[in-house]
Amino acid sequence: MRVAILAHEQFPERAKTATGILRYGDDEVVAVLDRSHAGERVSDLLPDVRDVPIVEGMDDVPGPVDALVIGIAPIGGGFEESWRPDVRTALESGCDLVSGLHYFLAEDEEFSELAAANDCDIWDVRKPSDDLTVSQGVAAEVDAEVVLTVGTDCSVGKMTATVELLRAAQDRGVDAAFVPTGQTGIMIEGWGNPIDRVVSDFTAGAVEEMILERGNDHDYLFVEGQGSIVHPAYSAVTCGILHGAMPDSLVLCHVAGREEIHGYESFPLAPLADYVSLYESLARPVHETAVVAGALNTAHLDEREADQAVADYADDLGVPATDPVRFDADAVLEAVL
Amino acid sequence: MRVAILAHEQFPERAKTATGILRYGDDEVVAVLDRSHAGERVSDLLPDVRDVPIVEGMDDVPGPVDALVIGIAPIGGGFEESWRPDVRTALESGCDLVSGLHYFLAEDEEFSELAAANDCDIWDVRKPSDDLTVSQGVAAEVDAEVVLTVGTDCSVGKMTATVELLRAAQDRGVDAAFVPTGQTGIMIEGWGNPIDRVVSDFTAGAVEEMILERGNDHDYLFVEGQGSIVHPAYSAVTCGILHGAMPDSLVLCHVAGREEIHGYESFPLAPLADYVSLYESLARPVHETAVVAGALNTAHLDEREADQAVADYADDLGVPATDPVRFDADAVLEAVL
Repeated sequence: MRVAILAHEQFPERAKTATGILRYGDDEVVAVLDRSHAGERVSDLLPDVRDVPIVEGMDDVPGPVDALVIGIAPIGGGFEESWRPDVRTALESGCDLVSGLHYFLAEDEEFSELAAANDCDIWDVRKPSDDLTVSQGVAAEVDAEVVLTVGTDCSVGKMTATVELLRAAQDRGVDAAFVPTGQTGIMIEGWGNPIDRVVSDFTAGAVEEMILERGNDHDYLFVEGQGSIVHPAYSAVTCGILHGAMPDSLVLCHVAGREEIHGYESFPLAPLADYVSLYESLARPVHETAVVAGALNTAHLDEREADQAVADYADDLGVPATDPVRFDADAVLEAVL
Repeated sequence: MRVAILAHEQFPERAKTATGILRYGDDEVVAVLDRSHAGERVSDLLPDVRDVPIVEGMDDVPGPVDALVIGIAPIGGGFEESWRPDVRTALESGCDLVSGLHYFLAEDEEFSELAAANDCDIWDVRKPSDDLTVSQGVAAEVDAEVVLTVGTDCSVGKMTATVELLRAAQDRGVDAAFVPTGQTGIMIEGWGNPIDRVVSDFTAGAVEEMILERGNDHDYLFVEGQGSIVHPAYSAVTCGILHGAMPDSLVLCHVAGREEIHGYESFPLAPLADYVSLYESLARPVHETAVVAGALNTAHLDEREADQAVADYADDLGVPATDPVRFDADAVLEAVL
């Protein structure tokens, strides 16, 4: 599949989905749409992913594409009307749509009519399956060892760490699979339940359902975590994943130097040791687990600072740690596998 | 309002909503519909609530009624087709419907047509408002002190304890209000967000929205808790309420003698001290709180056993405790107010 990614005015810092797909997606990306960077290239802005041109709009994409992916997720998940001409052009030229917005494009009257007329599929990744239900409490019964990334906050790199550790494990010949729980992971994997969008009573059940579906076909499952267990807004999602996935081991993800909750700056992050003890003690009555490794996001630091930050983080946690984007994951994998 | 309550084949043990309304509702209940107990009276089965006749179906209800309330909630929340004739009869005679099922009666084709034809309202209590969103993390800013009931499990009597403590406080002249989070509480109060049915990302936000709406009009808010923080299926809901409500104090609810999670019997309940420390340590990074009292459900014990069980429970917790349905709530209120 050849895809274009819409990320107007947000690329790259506030376009988590776009950068995730550029980094890990299997499809061929032919262009990023960002009118504020038109004429530049991805490599001008983001060094460590594949390089593609950045264009003004759908009309400027080089060559035909099979799908337009909405690569940004504004707070609230709404649709920005300034994107409508690009989406319209895509549908008129027979492109499928992939979107992780809370606003479902398949329910937009104009888009659904255009899709029908031009034989296009619209995949609203964040629309949960209708057959989700409550957890049975049986995820621990699958054959696979379950590894879950947990975090000190939102936007610390849990999805990135999960995919990096998965691939490092696969590179060693380990039979491991990815269990995505958020829109970007679901787009990369082509499968998964958007846990933050399911009925709250089904949070654990929607994770369990994925573990049961894949858990007997692999030796390891790497489950993408969400939020933080003490996030003022999103802790419910985190807690449901922790109990629904029944992980055998946890990898604690953090951004070097972050001291306050992202977007909720009146709340300081808790001490690292508190996160470890909270995740472990909260999991224990359902399924015993432990933080066995750490993943530290050091993207904003230089090489020497990053090295020191990882060493300090490992010391604080008392377990192996790495920045899996930047450094090797050997010691962390030894702890996890 | 004169209401009839449908509870076929489930009254009283498995009809939590029916018994909650009989105990605490403001409306006049004229009959309970339970074909397996037709001809008996509520007082034959449940001694401590108002007494009304139990009848076979809507045709046997004495006198006109304004609303039919679905007073049972099967696992999964589906609609049982054997109830259809009674619901049809109700609508044909101009009765409104009140339902807490996951299956929305207003979206049932036959019911919506009958309701339109007979000018009836259908209130699907469990259908969340469309304008819910993520928490801002500001519930602690309201004037009221917030008291939250938390539990060792589902179905331990959190709603009952909440309403009993609220009323005992009001009897003392305290300006206190109820914040319901589940279907029965919402029916009793005529207002509220069904937290277990909202989008998981909005769990805390849906509680916060209620705290903000009522929190500056009262000195105390009594918030109905849900589930348990270590429930294999429902912990996400519990966690979202804990962080969204930002309670100043917690009342730990438990059923005397319960040792396993209801419906998940392979999971033993954690020690009581673990619940106390988990609820407190999980709340702390968002808003500091403490378990200041206990509420014990002793309905299945005789008077002497109940008295002893409450004393033991208070000892175990190290705080005052009572069974607020059975005994006075003075010591518990002293701790809470």
